[in-house]
Parts: sequence; structure tokens; C-alpha cells
Amino acid sequence: MPPPSDEPLADDTLEQLRAVSVATVTMQLLKRGLRHTFIQGSRPLNPQHARFAAEAYTLRTVPMREDLGTLAVLADPEYPQRKAIEACPPGQVLVCDSRGEQRAGMLGDILTTRLMVRGVAAFVTDGPMRDAAAVAAIEFPTFCTGSAAPASLAAHFAVAVQEPIACGGVAVFPGDVLVGDPDGVCVIPRGIADDVARTAGEQELMEEFILERVRDGAPVPGTYPPNEATLKAFEAWRRDRT
Amino acid sequence: MPPPSDEPLADDTLEQLRAVSVATVTMQLLKRGLRHTFIQGSRPLNPQHARFAAEAYTLRTVPMREDLGTLAVLADPEYPQRKAIEACPPGQVLVCDSRGEQRAGMLGDILTTRLMVRGVAAFVTDGPMRDAAAVAAIEFPTFCTGSAAPASLAAHFAVAVQEPIACGGVAVFPGDVLVGDPDGVCVIPRGIADDVARTAGEQELMEEFILERVRDGAPVPGTYPPNEATLKAFEAWRRDRT
Amino acid sequence: MPPPSDEPLADDTLEQLRAVSVATVTMQLLKRGLRHTFIQGSRPLNPQHARFAAEAYTLRTVPMREDLGTLAVLADPEYPQRKAIEACPPGQVLVCDSRGEQRAGMLGDILTTRLMVRGVAAFVTDGPMRDAAAVAAIEFPTFCTGSAAPASLAAHFAVAVQEPIACGGVAVFPGDVLVGDPDGVCVIPRGIADDVARTAGEQELMEEFILERVRDGAPVPGTYPPNEATLKAFEAWRRDRT
Amino acid sequence: MPPPSDEPLADDTLEQLRAVSVATVTMQLLKRGLRHTFIQGSRPLNPQHARFAAEAYTLRTVPMREDLGTLAVLADPEYPQRKAIEACPPGQVLVCDSRGEQRAGMLGDILTTRLMVRGVAAFVTDGPMRDAAAVAAIEFPTFCTGSAAPASLAAHFAVAVQEPIACGGVAVFPGDVLVGDPDGVCVIPRGIADDVARTAGEQELMEEFILERVRDGAPVPGTYPPNEATLKAFEAWRRDRT
Amino acid sequence: MPPPSDEPLADDTLEQLRAVSVATVTMQLLKRGLRHTFIQGSRPLNPQHARFAAEAYTLRTVPMREDLGTLAVLADPEYPQRKAIEACPPGQVLVCDSRGEQRAGMLGDILTTRLMVRGVAAFVTDGPMRDAAAVAAIEFPTFCTGSAAPASLAAHFAVAVQEPIACGGVAVFPGDVLVGDPDGVCVIPRGIADDVARTAGEQELMEEFILERVRDGAPVPGTYPPNEATLKAFEAWRRDRT
Amino acid sequence: MPPPSDEPLADDTLEQLRAVSVATVTMQLLKRGLRHTFIQGSRPLNPQHARFAAEAYTLRTVPMREDLGTLAVLADPEYPQRKAIEACPPGQVLVCDSRGEQRAGMLGDILTTRLMVRGVAAFVTDGPMRDAAAVAAIEFPTFCTGSAAPASLAAHFAVAVQEPIACGGVAVFPGDVLVGDPDGVCVIPRGIADDVARTAGEQELMEEFILERVRDGAPVPGTYPPNEATLKAFEAWRRDRT
Repeated sequence: MPPPSDEPLADDTLEQLRAVSVATVTMQLLKRGLRHTFIQGSRPLNPQHARFAAEAYTLRTVPMREDLGTLAVLADPEYPQRKAIEACPPGQVLVCDSRGEQRAGMLGDILTTRLMVRGVAAFVTDGPMRDAAAVAAIEFPTFCTGSAAPASLAAHFAVAVQEPIACGGVAVFPGDVLVGDPDGVCVIPRGIADDVARTAGEQELMEEFILERVRDGAPVPGTYPPNEATLKAFEAWRRDRT
Repeated sequence: MPPPSDEPLADDTLEQLRAVSVATVTMQLLKRGLRHTFIQGSRPLNPQHARFAAEAYTLRTVPMREDLGTLAVLADPEYPQRKAIEACPPGQVLVCDSRGEQRAGMLGDILTTRLMVRGVAAFVTDGPMRDAAAVAAIEFPTFCTGSAAPASLAAHFAVAVQEPIACGGVAVFPGDVLVGDPDGVCVIPRGIADDVARTAGEQELMEEFILERVRDGAPVPGTYPPNEATLKAFEAWRRDRT
Repeated sequence: MPPPSDEPLADDTLEQLRAVSVATVTMQLLKRGLRHTFIQGSRPLNPQHARFAAEAYTLRTVPMREDLGTLAVLADPEYPQRKAIEACPPGQVLVCDSRGEQRAGMLGDILTTRLMVRGVAAFVTDGPMRDAAAVAAIEFPTFCTGSAAPASLAAHFAVAVQEPIACGGVAVFPGDVLVGDPDGVCVIPRGIADDVARTAGEQELMEEFILERVRDGAPVPGTYPPNEATLKAFEAWRRDRT
Repeated sequence: MPPPSDEPLADDTLEQLRAVSVATVTMQLLKRGLRHTFIQGSRPLNPQHARFAAEAYTLRTVPMREDLGTLAVLADPEYPQRKAIEACPPGQVLVCDSRGEQRAGMLGDILTTRLMVRGVAAFVTDGPMRDAAAVAAIEFPTFCTGSAAPASLAAHFAVAVQEPIACGGVAVFPGDVLVGDPDGVCVIPRGIADDVARTAGEQELMEEFILERVRDGAPVPGTYPPNEATLKAFEAWRRDRT
Repeated sequence: MPPPSDEPLADDTLEQLRAVSVATVTMQLLKRGLRHTFIQGSRPLNPQHARFAAEAYTLRTVPMREDLGTLAVLADPEYPQRKAIEACPPGQVLVCDSRGEQRAGMLGDILTTRLMVRGVAAFVTDGPMRDAAAVAAIEFPTFCTGSAAPASLAAHFAVAVQEPIACGGVAVFPGDVLVGDPDGVCVIPRGIADDVARTAGEQELMEEFILERVRDGAPVPGTYPPNEATLKAFEAWRRDRT
Repeated sequence: MPPPSDEPLADDTLEQLRAVSVATVTMQLLKRGLRHTFIQGSRPLNPQHARFAAEAYTLRTVPMREDLGTLAVLADPEYPQRKAIEACPPGQVLVCDSRGEQRAGMLGDILTTRLMVRGVAAFVTDGPMRDAAAVAAIEFPTFCTGSAAPASLAAHFAVAVQEPIACGGVAVFPGDVLVGDPDGVCVIPRGIADDVARTAGEQELMEEFILERVRDGAPVPGTYPPNEATLKAFEAWRRDRT
């Protein structure tokens, strides 16, 4: 596998990305020819705790098999699901593939609380969570497909951390940058995250201006996307704000 | 295609339909032999802004193809998605087929705001919306399957307005009457909308009476559906209210 | 079919089960080798009214056929859907298979109100409800897959009560014990309900203790699952509370 | 449940139905307002052994639960799956619901051979078969969704015979008449089977004539459906053949 | 909608495309950045009659509604489904959207025979056919998702010909070039069909050479894709054949 | 991840497994409590070339992303898809996860031919193949979900070999034993393969005897499963054959 970029991100990339919407980020990715970056089906359990931008720490699973998925594995600190909880660096987002499986919850309130206490930025998966009401009450962004009470062992067996995974139909490599908001989560390939962050901020400012105009009665043609007159008006508006 | 009725609706049809539930309307349609009238999977983003009744203005799409779905088309006022936003008459509902596709949002907050400013009655589709939290905050009924951040061009290419479309597994012809509430949206063939509106009001009144009775302890048999004694009691109750 | 146990439940079994989460109950069932006990896709319409534990009274349906599903059947008190509403004993939960069908709502506000008035414990199905906003406002636990306005006759024909059914991918026998909370509903085979109730209470207490520890900064290894030191601390904590 | 008709069928009904296609039968049912009669997803394992018409003997299942689905039940002659194999009357078709479940095969070559030896007319289910290649080699119509090696106990628990069931999205009542050909299987409500058989034969003859005409170059309009001139030509053709 | 190219195709484009596989054509399209060109789920009923290349004539449908889908419409020569059968020019392929609906067959043996008699090149849809065994016996390429006996009116209502449609998840515009083989059908945007045809022939020749080498024991690296040495060997092989 | 057993298999284990059906093997696994061992949806392209038993060599993929899935990677001998083709040891089966994705074929005739030439035992995936008709003509067991012409790069990006994978809803670890026949493929955890092979042979012999009896008119009860009398007759039959 071609190694994903491991260059450090620019200092303000994550901060910039926290200030823009996922809709804006996916538009920036589409402009660069990337159409498969939005994690399908994963939504914030609590839309009040949805906004984050962070580097990905990955956890990978395969389907449960009765000979492997015994309760004993949970006591093994090297069992990858438990290991990921302790090893995901503060400030990063733990992303886990549930392979679309809806019959078991990946984490419950105890493990999610541990992530929050450790300063992890968010948790993202393409399956459900257990104790979902309790998890939603934690001040911590959790993205999933809903709730299912059975423990992860009922359907999953964790096999590794920090490998590329499939999540919600898109690829996630360790170190990719994930951005979340109430719409869901998208993945920015690490190598272009700095550039996306910069242009996303520009786009967001423009859309704020456009939305103002539309509220004031401007028609869509000429406004969105902006023609030359609108661009000129935008530049004036921008100068006025500062 | 047999032309849908283009007779004007009776003056109070839409007003009557705004006062009844979609459950009531679908029962009236079932009584007329119509079993396929409820748009599958489309729900109000904000249940507080769900109730509407309006004539349908349709927008049709096909799957995106990389040679067609370039960002340049968005600047073309004749691109049907943009055209529909400006051309849907005030008081009508804009209905758009997403062909069940969940990977891209059909509209975001800017275009939805424009619809609201223009006095359009509602927006209905069988796919997701972008910026769904922002759209939900607009005082405007929006029905969809949830949220997805990517722009419509990531998955759709709009091809026409005012053609018959498939939406959520049911047919919608321009001029059909759509009724929405928190349960979702159903489609009344235009030619029977006046008649449905009148009988729906009758049924709703009856059900208000029945619900009162059931709250007071009446058993279901004889009450719902009503037998002769209950019908007589209903007539009395009805006289008393006026 | 092997008769399900019809031994009476221990006096406090249902009360104990109302005090624990569905996540806890499914873990107890997994420990006994039962991996298929959580009803897929069914969630409380109102998470504030989700918690219940009760014996199952079942209603079974088959797909609608136009010759059978006429409106006339609704007036027949022996039509199983209507019969179930009047016959489900107070304190029991009415469980109905919708066979995953999403096009029609199984009950609306009138029949749900009748169940509440009669003292039924809850209603559970693997399809949608009609008038879902009105039903959610009733103080009564209702579990379903969402809302659909068409009446049940548009898609279902009820054929029997008190037979084993499939609901959300799991078997439900009359007399099995169902437990619900915001995560959803699980099924306990009647013969082991007393035992599950007792051990579930133990587990819940332990998890309360563990969650406290994790909030205070304890790492997962050694804490969850607990090692000997944690178990000793738990015993001390337990003594202190009483 | 309203009892299905239990009047005996006319003597030649089944024979007439064996001579017509399922496409023809479903058209006759559509003319009588019945749109939900074709079992979805079930196809003949061997298209050479697909044609049958017979009264339905039903077998009903629910999802497997580990406490019930033990291998011991297979030795119990009263276990409904085994009972059905011995009790389905010769000349009738055994129909079994697999609830769309694709993970286990309902029967294998031993039980299918027993059905054939006993003179049963056919086997129909909406899930897969085991040993499907061996089953396909038996001279016996078997309709299913494909092959899956695991035994039925891996996913199903049989609960009753001769109850109404759901199969492939349609209702099947004991005594309904099923007709199969390479397209699949449809269900005729018993009460109208005699009438459908008679008119289906008429339609089939007409379509044989129409197909001949179309092969000879006749355009569709006026031919299919036939106008008066074509009807007259049909009557002449019919007289000539006899 | 941006008009698809209506330039005439080069004289030998269709002939060249009939000589190459769909796998080759999709690779040529991928090289031009087109990833969404293969019609999902549609396979030849008879793999012996699968190979074709032709310009698309389109037929569009919406879901059946009981008030529209009466048997009477079939007698109307202007009903689009019947009109398409007579109007699709010889040598072109009739493509029809079934919107993924599996409950009804789009055409049966009579209408398919008419297409064959009229010299139409093929029929393609993303739903099933009726009388599928009889249709498979006609010497005419028919691509569909399988068999379903009910007539199209049970699920579809045809609304137009020669409009852009969605078929199997991809866009088809009138005049696009469709190519079929046992793998299925892909769509070439008309404007690039000449160019694709030319390079596809080149690729096919190269792959014939590579396959020969691999059969003789050549390893994949250096052979597929070819390195300079292999390219040189290919040129020699090519000269030798002529 | 707990290391799968890497003990060598007994000498005749694979040979014994080649002589039994997958139905028999899954029954042996069910007797050992393993219910999730059959790869869902994967069938032999050519039922004449379906029977194999071999150790698994795994290839893992994630969803395509436009920045990674360029045609250039195919020339890299270290690209895992190409590497697996050359590195899978003769006599082993190459198993690859397609994550259920149906839009692209994992291999075509060139790479499959290379596997055959190299003496690989079989190829198994849970998605489609390209050039499926050509692949079916190769004397080599290929299991997949059907055909799709687009190259794997249109939907997949290969990331590793010899890691645990999910395939058709079940876990496959490197070194597990896979067995295929016309029904499909099942996975035997390596550590129990010797034992399963031995008892599977026993079961198969018994079923051969039972099938003979059933053909001769024996009823199911007492025969299948066998009671003491049948077991005694089996022992006699067995002695007689040798």
C-alpha cells in the first residue's frame, strides 16, 4: 500500500477545519476530483456535540466467529478494541469499521467515557452504539448509525489498529484528517489537508455573504455561484467586516 | 402519457387538506382503491415545520456522469436544478427525485432559503439534504431521508422540470396535490383532490370524536369503526360543538 | 413446537428487569450463549417513554391481499389486529410482526390510546406507526421503525394472536419476557428470565462502579472487565453504599 | 382470520393451470384487482422441472434461537419441519417461509428426495436450499432463491404446519392454489381458482395466436391487445385448428 | 439539460465495438475519468445472444398508480411502452428504466418478438422480464435482472420516450452508445464513442497477446500492464500476424 | 489479534475435505457451535469447477479513492492485488474481500489464468468478476457474486496480503481451511480442520446410506437422523461395501 503522507499538518489546519462545515469540505474535495469522501450512514448521536476535526487513529474488525469472540478476550489489554481505547492519542479521532453491521453496538458508555477522559477528539463508526442515550449525554462527538444493545462481541472481532480501513463506504488511512458536523463525517487525504483547510475557509466566507444576499431577496442566478458583480460586492463586504 | 387533470382546484381544497393528517388522507385514498400514494422514506427535517398542502412542481434527475456533472453547470440559469428554484410558483411544492440515492444532498441552506423567500410551500425529495441542521432551522417544510454533506453534483444530474417523476416509490405528476405532516408526504391525483379534501375533513372530525371516547374508556369494537350507536352519538356531539 | 415454559415468573423478576438496561440484559444472554435476542430496527418513538419489562402477547400478520384486506374486516371484533387490542392482558406487552415492511403503519393514535387506557405495558413492532407524532405524545412505550401514514390494511393482514412470531429478526414466543429502553427491545426466553433478572442487577451495579472509576481516570485494563483488585474495591464500595 | 374457501376445486382446474404460464395467471389475477400474488425471488433450481399447479400445504418458521434450535429437535417426528415432510398430502405443494433469510438452506437432497418419493407436487420457499446441485438433479419442482450449505437449524426454527404464511412478500393460505413455471410461482386464492383456470386457458390460446401474427410481421397496435379485426381473425384461426 | 452530442458516429464505430468486450470498454472509459458507466444488475437472459453495440432509444417509466395503470392503456398506440416497441429504429437498442423494481416484468415474449422482427438491436432494462424462458429462446439480446411473471402494469406506468433516463444506476441519454456482452452492458457518451471504439480495439489486441504470454507462464509483473520489453514483443507479434 | 493456529494440517485432511460436501462441513461446524462459517453470496462461476479444499491466502481491499486508485499502481509489483497473484502459494486458495461491492470485477481472465498456471487451488471473493464468461471457461474454481465489467480499480484499492479479512459476512484468517462445492464456500478454523475432516467423512458415508434408504421409501422419522435400528443397518451396509 502506498504510504499515506506522514508530513506534519500545518499548525492551523485543524483549527481552520473546525470552523467550516462538512458540506464545504466535500465541495473542496469534489473540486479536486474526489467524489468518495463522505462516510455513509454515520450521524452524530448528539448534534450538539458534532463538530470536530482531527487525525484518524483506526481500529479494524472482522465478523465474529464463536471460537474467537469469547468474553475472555475483553480482559486482554492487547485485544485491539481495548488497546485502541488506551492508545489513540489525545486530540485524534478513533475510527472503527463496523462493516455496516447493525446487530451490535461498537462501544457503550464506559468505553466512550474513557475516550473522553483521555482527551480523544471523537469516535466514528459505520454501525451502532450501545447505551446510546447515555453516550449521547457525554460531551464528546460520537458518530454512528444509531443504537443496538448487544455488545460488539456479538457481531465483531477486532483484529488490528492503525491499518487502512473501510468505513461507511470510504477509505480511511491512519493520519487522514476527519471533519465532523451535524451532517456527518468526511475524510480528507492527509496530503491535501492543509490546502483544503485554506480554501474551505474562503468558500465558507463567500457562502456566508451569499446567504445574506439570498435572505435579502437576491435570485440564485448570478449570486450562487457568484458572477463578477457579486464577486466585486463580496470583496467590498469582506473589507467592511474587518 | 395521459394528461393529468388540469382543472383548477376548488377554492378551499388546499386549506381543508392543511387541516387534516396524512394518515387521514391515505385512508381516503385507500377507500378509492389507491394503495401507492405515500412517499417512502421522506420525513420532515423539522417536525415543527411539516404541515403543508400544495400543488406539485417537479424536478427530475438522472445519475451523475463525470462528463456532465461539472461545477460549470451550476452557473447556467437553465440548469434544471437551478431553474426549478426560481421557477417553482409561490404556493406550490417543489418535488425532486433523488432515486433513493443517499450519497449526496439535493439542496443546502442557500437554495432552501431562496425557496422560502420566494414563497414556495415546501420541498420534498427521496434523498438527503446538505447542511441539514441549518436547513432544519429555516421556517420552511423540508422532507427528505436525512443528511449528506456532498453536493448534489456528486451523485445527480438534473435533466428537466415539470415532467412526471418517481419519488419514494410513488408517481408524482405536475399538478398533483401533495400533503405533508410529521408522518411524511402523500400524493393525491389532481382529479380527485377536491373530493378527497371534503371527505377527509369528515373523517378527521369523526376520529376526533372517537379518540375522545377511547380516552374515556370505550372499547374498540363498536367505536372504531363506529357502529350505529356510535354514529348517532357522533351526530349529537357534532351538533353540540357548533 | 416445543412449548415455551409457562411457569410463573418470580415475583420481582419484572421489577428487577425494569431497573437494568437492555445492553446489560443482552450481555447476560450472550453469557448464556444467546446471540439473537435483540429486535433489529425497532426504537422508541419517544425515548422518554422507553423503559419497560413485560410478558409478550403476540399478534401475527401476513402480507395484504386485495381480496382479504377490505375495510370491512376492521369492524369484525374477531379480526386479530382488533382482537389483540382488547385481549392483551394489562401489564403485558403487545408484540406484532410487520415483517420489515415499511409502507404502512401498524397502529395509529386511537388504538395506541386504547392500549394505554387498558393498562397494557408497551407496544413493539418491526415496522412503522401512523400518526407517529401523536402516538409519541402518549405516555406509553411504543417501539417501531419510524412513521408511515398508510393504515395497516394497505400492507398487512392480521391472522392470529398468541402464536410464535418473528420480530426484527428474532423469535418471540407468547410469554417470553421483553425488556425495552432507549436502545431498543430484547427478548428473554421465559424459562431463564428469573435467572437473567438476578444476574443483570449484579452486572448493572458493577458497571455503575466501573463507570465511576473510569470517570475518575482509571484505565480500561484491569477495570473493565475488573481484575481482582478492582473486584475487591467494588466489594468495599458496595458495602459503603448500604 | 376469515377462513379461506374450503370448497373442493373443479375437477380439471389443476390440469388447466398446468397448461398455462404464470405470466398468464398473474394477468388474470390483475384483471380481478389482485396485484400481490407473485412470490418474489423464488426461482426453479432446475427450469426443466418447473411446471406445476397444486394446493398449498404450509410450513411456518421463526428465526433460530440457540436454546431452541438444537440438533435434538431433528429427531422429533413432531418437529414441524420433519412433520411437514411426512404429512404434506401427495399432489399438494409444500410451501415454507424462509423470511427472506439467505444464510441457511431450508432442505437438502435427503428431505427433497422423500417429498418426491411421497408424490408431493413441488417445494417452494423464499430462501435457499442446501446441496442445491443434487436437489436440482431430482425430477421434482423446487423453487428457492439459490443455494446455501448451512442446515436450516442455523437460521430457522419451524413452529407450525397449515397456518397462513408470508412467502416472498405474498400471503399463502392452506388450500390456495400455487402455479409454477420457469418465471417463478404465483398464488391463486382458492375461492377463485376454478374461474381463473378457465379464463387463463382462453388467454393463453389468444396469445398463441397473437405471437404467431407478430412473428409474421403484425404491428403491436391492433394486435396486442387485439382489436375487433384481430378478434375476428382469432375466431377463424381457432375454428380452423379444431 | 445540455444536449448530448448528435453528431453522426464514424462508419465503423459500432462494428469495432461489437468486436471488443465490455470489460475493455469500461477500462477505456475509466482512462477518460468515467467511473459510472456500467449498468448495475442487468445481465443477458441468454449469454449466447449477448453481444451488441448500438445507439440508445430510451423509454421512461414511473411507479404504477391504480388510477393510471388500467388495462385500457395497453390498447392506446400512444401509450409510451407500446409506442417505443414500434418507434425504436432498427439497429438501435431500446433501453428502459425499471427503477430497480423486481415485482413485474417489463416485456414478455410477444413484445420482444416484435422488437426482433423489426430489427431492433437489443433490449436493456434494470428490472426483470416476463416469460423469461421463452424470451431467452428468441435470437435477440435481452438484458435484465431475471424473471417476474406479473405484467409491467402491475408496477410501472410508462411516461415518455427519448428522454434521458436512469438505468441500473447510470445515466443513459438518447443517442448514447451501449455495448453488451455476457458481463452486462455499459454506456459510452455519444461524443466520445468514436474515440473509445478505436482505442478499445488496440487494447483488446494487446490483451490477446498478454493472455497468450500468461498462458505460456509469464509472470504478471512486466507483462500486465506491459513494460517496454513486453511492448516490443507485442509489436513483433503484431507484425507477424498480418 | 490472537494468532490463528499455525500447526501443520494432518496429511490427508485436505484430501478428505475434497471428498465431502460443504453442506456436510457446515453441519460439522454447527455441531461444534460455529454458526457463521458460510461465505454469503459467493457461488462458483462454473459449477463443473467448484470442488476444492485448501488453506487460505488472503488479500484485503478498501474502497477506491480517486487519489489512490490510479492506473499507475497496476504496474507496481508491490501493489497488493498484483503481489497476491504471484505470491499465493500453489495449492492454496486466494481469498479477497470485495466488501459486498457489486460495481466492479475483482479479477478478469488474464489474472485468473495466471493463478491457474501457478497451481493456485481456487479464487474466492464476495463481489463479481470481469470477463466472467471467459473466466468460467478456465479449469479453475472461481467463486464470486456474478459479473461486472469495470476493473477493480473502479471501486477497490488493495492494501495488504495475509491479514484477517471479512468475506461474505464471515471472518477468514490466513491459514484457515476453505472448502468449496456448487453450494458455495465455507471456512474451517485451522485449529479444528483435522478433526472436522475426519467426522465429515463419517457423516457423508452415513448420508449416502440414508439417501439410499429414502429413495427406497423409508420415512424420515427413524431414518434421518438415524435411530438405533437404522444405525445397526448402517453398520451392516458399511461392512458389506468393503
